[in-house]
Amino acid sequence: MTATPHPGRVGILGGGQLARMLALAGAPLGLRFLVLDSAEEACAAQLVPQLRADYDDAAALAEFAASVDVATFDFENVPAAAAEWLAGRIPVHPGPRALAVAQDRLAEKSLFRELGIPVPAFEAVDSREALDAALARVGAPAILKTRRFGYDGKGQFRLRSAADADAAWAALGGPSAALILEGFVRFDRELSVVAVRARDGEFRAWPLSQNWHEDGILAATLAPAPAGAEIEALALGHARRLADALDYVGVFALELFQCGDALLANEMAPRVHNSGHWTIEGAETSQFENHLRAVLGLPLGDTRARGHACMLNWIGALPDRQPVLAEAGGHWHDYGKSARAGRKVGHATLRADDLEALADALERVGRALGRQPQVAPVIACLRGG
Amino acid sequence: MTATPHPGRVGILGGGQLARMLALAGAPLGLRFLVLDSAEEACAAQLVPQLRADYDDAAALAEFAASVDVATFDFENVPAAAAEWLAGRIPVHPGPRALAVAQDRLAEKSLFRELGIPVPAFEAVDSREALDAALARVGAPAILKTRRFGYDGKGQFRLRSAADADAAWAALGGPSAALILEGFVRFDRELSVVAVRARDGEFRAWPLSQNWHEDGILAATLAPAPAGAEIEALALGHARRLADALDYVGVFALELFQCGDALLANEMAPRVHNSGHWTIEGAETSQFENHLRAVLGLPLGDTRARGHACMLNWIGALPDRQPVLAEAGGHWHDYGKSARAGRKVGHATLRADDLEALADALERVGRALGRQPQVAPVIACLRGG
Ligand SMILES: Nc1ncnc2c1ncn2[C@@H]1O[C@H](COP(=O)(O)OP(=O)(O)O)[C@@H](O)[C@H]1O
Ligand SMILES: Nc1ncnc2c1ncn2[C@@H]1O[C@H](COP(=O)(O)OP(=O)(O)O)[C@@H](O)[C@H]1O
Ligand SMILES: [Mg+2]
Ligand SMILES: [Mg+2]
Repeated sequence: MTATPHPGRVGILGGGQLARMLALAGAPLGLRFLVLDSAEEACAAQLVPQLRADYDDAAALAEFAASVDVATFDFENVPAAAAEWLAGRIPVHPGPRALAVAQDRLAEKSLFRELGIPVPAFEAVDSREALDAALARVGAPAILKTRRFGYDGKGQFRLRSAADADAAWAALGGPSAALILEGFVRFDRELSVVAVRARDGEFRAWPLSQNWHEDGILAATLAPAPAGAEIEALALGHARRLADALDYVGVFALELFQCGDALLANEMAPRVHNSGHWTIEGAETSQFENHLRAVLGLPLGDTRARGHACMLNWIGALPDRQPVLAEAGGHWHDYGKSARAGRKVGHATLRADDLEALADALERVGRALGRQPQVAPVIACLRGG
Repeated sequence: MTATPHPGRVGILGGGQLARMLALAGAPLGLRFLVLDSAEEACAAQLVPQLRADYDDAAALAEFAASVDVATFDFENVPAAAAEWLAGRIPVHPGPRALAVAQDRLAEKSLFRELGIPVPAFEAVDSREALDAALARVGAPAILKTRRFGYDGKGQFRLRSAADADAAWAALGGPSAALILEGFVRFDRELSVVAVRARDGEFRAWPLSQNWHEDGILAATLAPAPAGAEIEALALGHARRLADALDYVGVFALELFQCGDALLANEMAPRVHNSGHWTIEGAETSQFENHLRAVLGLPLGDTRARGHACMLNWIGALPDRQPVLAEAGGHWHDYGKSARAGRKVGHATLRADDLEALADALERVGRALGRQPQVAPVIACLRGG
């Protein structure tokens, strides 16, 4: 009898729901965790120990580095210096370069373009005059976004016409503004590739996710997205090129706008992603487990879908869980957070073996919870509407 | 926006791998846990708080009762007095009566018989003379077992003939012996029903499990067991009658010996059960989640299987996880325990959509780990051997 080997301790920068779901996926692999988060009530800390400090607290970073075997992220906006400091001491996956690219919409879209991945028209904007010039090139409607720290549609301003430039500048501009203006894409739908790349370069992707946003926040995901093989191959090709270019290790998401037969890349998330939550029940291996497998150099798990899944995000507060749990394929995910406007507090996944059963379940849940607007576009998509 | 309701705290008596897997299944439901266990390193306590005390420690029980909304079990051999004391204060599921029956092989087999559930021949034995009398009635070969506290084949002595009576008595007898002698069943195979009953009496069962033991410890489970509809209906009928008779709430297992078209009940486990671990990946809802749903009065989840699953138990020490993780449907469960002879330290589940793929995967894993004897009977069963 050989001794049970200790499989190592994983440090996670950020202790939110992604860290929580990583911890839940990692426990069966025998992993221990430590989350670094300054929040008083990081929800992952209900399950794993938390080091409560800011990401730029040198003493805390040193303690973190000394306590874990490998580090990864629940949150990509960790200061670059902190990520680099850590990477000089312990393996950090994804690496600082992937993080840096994903932290800056300008660097990100520039890399996409370099790699031959089509993007919406975009221009850097750092002054009021530059905004006018950018608008002239990009055209209206357009979206002005902060290059950094945007999430869930925050840090964005939509311009219907050039007449909105003052309001946009008033909202996001200023002496040290670092912005990007993007052409507004009249997409047919939003898709995302959730994929994983191993240390040895092996690449696997889950079937495409189709996403619906409300007020810039993900509201629903359907997977596998009812896409043709060509769109799927195009999307996966983009994701793979990006991952290879960054020598990426771990799970990431590439958000895409579909317009006819074309795909435009919107952004990448260098971590497990909300549009991949359906993989917990809807795929053989979840994005959370595969991220950990990749980061630890273990074999990647199968990314095949099991039937059809729809993920519904709960924003602000949890609705009644009863109608979801009453569905045959109904699964509940409470992140253990208190309610707060705009906050992601949980999600539900409905899974079914065929499209019609999934549409029926969504209809019942939408009705019971008074959430018809959230489920309606998914149902329409499922019924070919 | 309504406030996120707090869904309650679940107390678990015992903090082993079953409590650990309950905690992992309960986190997405937003549940908090507290385990009561005297062990220094209860493996569930890597994820949830532990109250470290004996089950008969009155102060600890009072603290436990004051801290949780409902109590359940990872371990059925909790003193009856403790379970009853708790049940007088907070909801306890399953209730003390189910526990008492399951704790005593004589009470258990007597109840089975009362309910019309066939059992092997059995006789109570409390003296050397009673053993001879029992042997005369039951016949040889037979098994002498302690009525209480037996698990994983412990507290058992196999008698090939009446000549073994002295050795059996030397092993298990004594002035206050409370034993049971059972006829040795030459079964064709071992099956178990893993089922769940809700507070309102709703009953659901997973497809039958087929089990293989080595040295009295579960070695492998195949599910759904390749059984005919008649055997399945017979087994489920027995389980349902038992659960109704005990007004049982939660998950339980009923272990059965199949002999031709007949089923003989061996024992029941008033808790989630090792032969139900495959439900984590192999069924829409796992036994762990459904146990919590039942205990909390939530709707029961779907017990349908997803494909075919084989669970392999790791006893004593974990083997290399690589060959399992390299399989498309390979899932790993490390309980976070240190190695120790005879100890259940983890399991693997292999899942596949068809029988041949599962047999092939078992063959590869068995070979890579040098565990051919553990997988061989399952492969033979899958290939109709
Ligand atoms: N250029 C664009 N054209 C049209 N819609 C956009 C554009 N950029 C963003 N959006 C919409 O806003 C959502 C959020 O914007 P995104 O750039 O992904 O920021 P975040 O980092 O907040 O997710 C997108 O999913 C999409 O629905
Ligand atoms: N009466 C019996 N006849 C044949 N085999 C038996 C009998 N009782 C137990 N066994 C074998 O021993 C195993 C363990 O016995 P069991 O009574 O289930 O005790 P435990 O509580 O340790 O699981 C059974 O699964 C079966 O393989
Ligand atoms: Mg986005
Ligand atoms: Mg048994």
